[in-house]
Amino acid sequence: MSEGRASAVSLRVRYGETDQMGVAYHAHYLVWCEMARTEHMRQLGVRYRDLEAGGIKLAVSEARLRYVSSARYDDELTVTAWLAEVGSRRVLFKYRVERPEDGALLCTAETALISLDRSNKPTRMPAEALAIMEANVLAT
Amino acid sequence: MSEGRASAVSLRVRYGETDQMGVAYHAHYLVWCEMARTEHMRQLGVRYRDLEAGGIKLAVSEARLRYVSSARYDDELTVTAWLAEVGSRRVLFKYRVERPEDGALLCTAETALISLDRSNKPTRMPAEALAIMEANVLAT
Amino acid sequence: MSEGRASAVSLRVRYGETDQMGVAYHAHYLVWCEMARTEHMRQLGVRYRDLEAGGIKLAVSEARLRYVSSARYDDELTVTAWLAEVGSRRVLFKYRVERPEDGALLCTAETALISLDRSNKPTRMPAEALAIMEANVLAT
Amino acid sequence: MSEGRASAVSLRVRYGETDQMGVAYHAHYLVWCEMARTEHMRQLGVRYRDLEAGGIKLAVSEARLRYVSSARYDDELTVTAWLAEVGSRRVLFKYRVERPEDGALLCTAETALISLDRSNKPTRMPAEALAIMEANVLAT
Repeated sequence: MSEGRASAVSLRVRYGETDQMGVAYHAHYLVWCEMARTEHMRQLGVRYRDLEAGGIKLAVSEARLRYVSSARYDDELTVTAWLAEVGSRRVLFKYRVERPEDGALLCTAETALISLDRSNKPTRMPAEALAIMEANVLAT
Repeated sequence: MSEGRASAVSLRVRYGETDQMGVAYHAHYLVWCEMARTEHMRQLGVRYRDLEAGGIKLAVSEARLRYVSSARYDDELTVTAWLAEVGSRRVLFKYRVERPEDGALLCTAETALISLDRSNKPTRMPAEALAIMEANVLAT
Repeated sequence: MSEGRASAVSLRVRYGETDQMGVAYHAHYLVWCEMARTEHMRQLGVRYRDLEAGGIKLAVSEARLRYVSSARYDDELTVTAWLAEVGSRRVLFKYRVERPEDGALLCTAETALISLDRSNKPTRMPAEALAIMEANVLAT
Repeated sequence: MSEGRASAVSLRVRYGETDQMGVAYHAHYLVWCEMARTEHMRQLGVRYRDLEAGGIKLAVSEARLRYVSSARYDDELTVTAWLAEVGSRRVLFKYRVERPEDGALLCTAETALISLDRSNKPTRMPAEALAIMEANVLAT
């Protein structure tokens, strides 16, 4: 992956994230993806916290996950996020959840986010944030 | 929807399920879908708890969610689940999350589940459970 | 328990609430207690949602839980909540989590809540809500 | 704190961990405490994952939390854990949740854990793990 165009976070599977099947419960992957997405935006210089303070929310409008292999308690995982499509009101992030220890791919995912104003109406993203994101689309 | 072919559960959005956007956090919809799926299987006479006791796990292999409108704290929601496709090793469930108070559709979703044995290998579902599920596919 | 002075909610343990020990993860009991607390306030005529809309937040300042027996996936549980102490800025709720099927007591708990204004300063609760709560203290 | 007798983990508050009050939801502190507890045991040379593989579970039997100040989304927090009491069947961990950025103390907590065998009966902890823990009690 070209440098700077994707960001990764590391995390360790928490006990409370396992279920009685002995693996990480599938809903948590969406939380992990958000962690990587937030980190990626931070790396690009767009702090989500600041966007919200400015009245813009990015709400998840679609999510797709493909679960390939399962994660166990205490596993160290890497979640990589990048921008796959950027429009003025909608962006698409893609993700890979991997376990570096054995190189296993656990999950691929994507989420679409739409930009909403304070009254929850779709709205254009701030020009500066938009320009940054457009410059960092990674076609994969 | 034809009787008996879909099942619904009611739930009230919990405080801990909201996020600082003031709405239910998107990952919880996967949890709610699972509640409806479990209930639907129970209604059909297939208790997931018993399947697991018999060595069969149904693991989520894919998930898709389309978020249409958001849910607020204390909202009463209805989640409806039905079987859309049934194979010997893979079934596809579909879901609708609605808010009866104003008739709003909040989310549509689908999850594919694969049948795994004790060593996590894909395996045929027990014949009885399979027959019941095949008889209850709802084409929508 | 004297009528009207305590309220109960029923819930079924969700799959995602179990952990790999095969029982409900201990942190979820706090969530369940909050469900019963909200319901109890609703029964008393104090809707938490309305308090918040009026600028008053009730923030948990202390919590104590004693775990007696564990809950399994799909168990139906009853969580009972009542007011044990009521002051103008702080109230203490107590809870019992039980499994009606076999009469097992799973957990006893208590949480103190303090009343905060919009700037997160401790503040007196609205007189009406306070009067209702004072009239419903249950000494146990 | 004397070296090696306490361990700390860093974490960033996740979006899904906030609630509509705009702060981290109180139940998550139990999850964060467990992360620090696991890390502390790992630092001491007792891997919880291995204990479980050997048939020993440590189940939370009591928890107490005192919430002092609240955490916001994206805050970096430090959770410190240490052993306060060690018996052959029960250990008491204590915790501090702090925000290094401004030195704020957010929460103090303690959890008692009991040692259970495969049939969920209280049992002595393995001698080696016990000796290590006894040697690392920190009286505060």
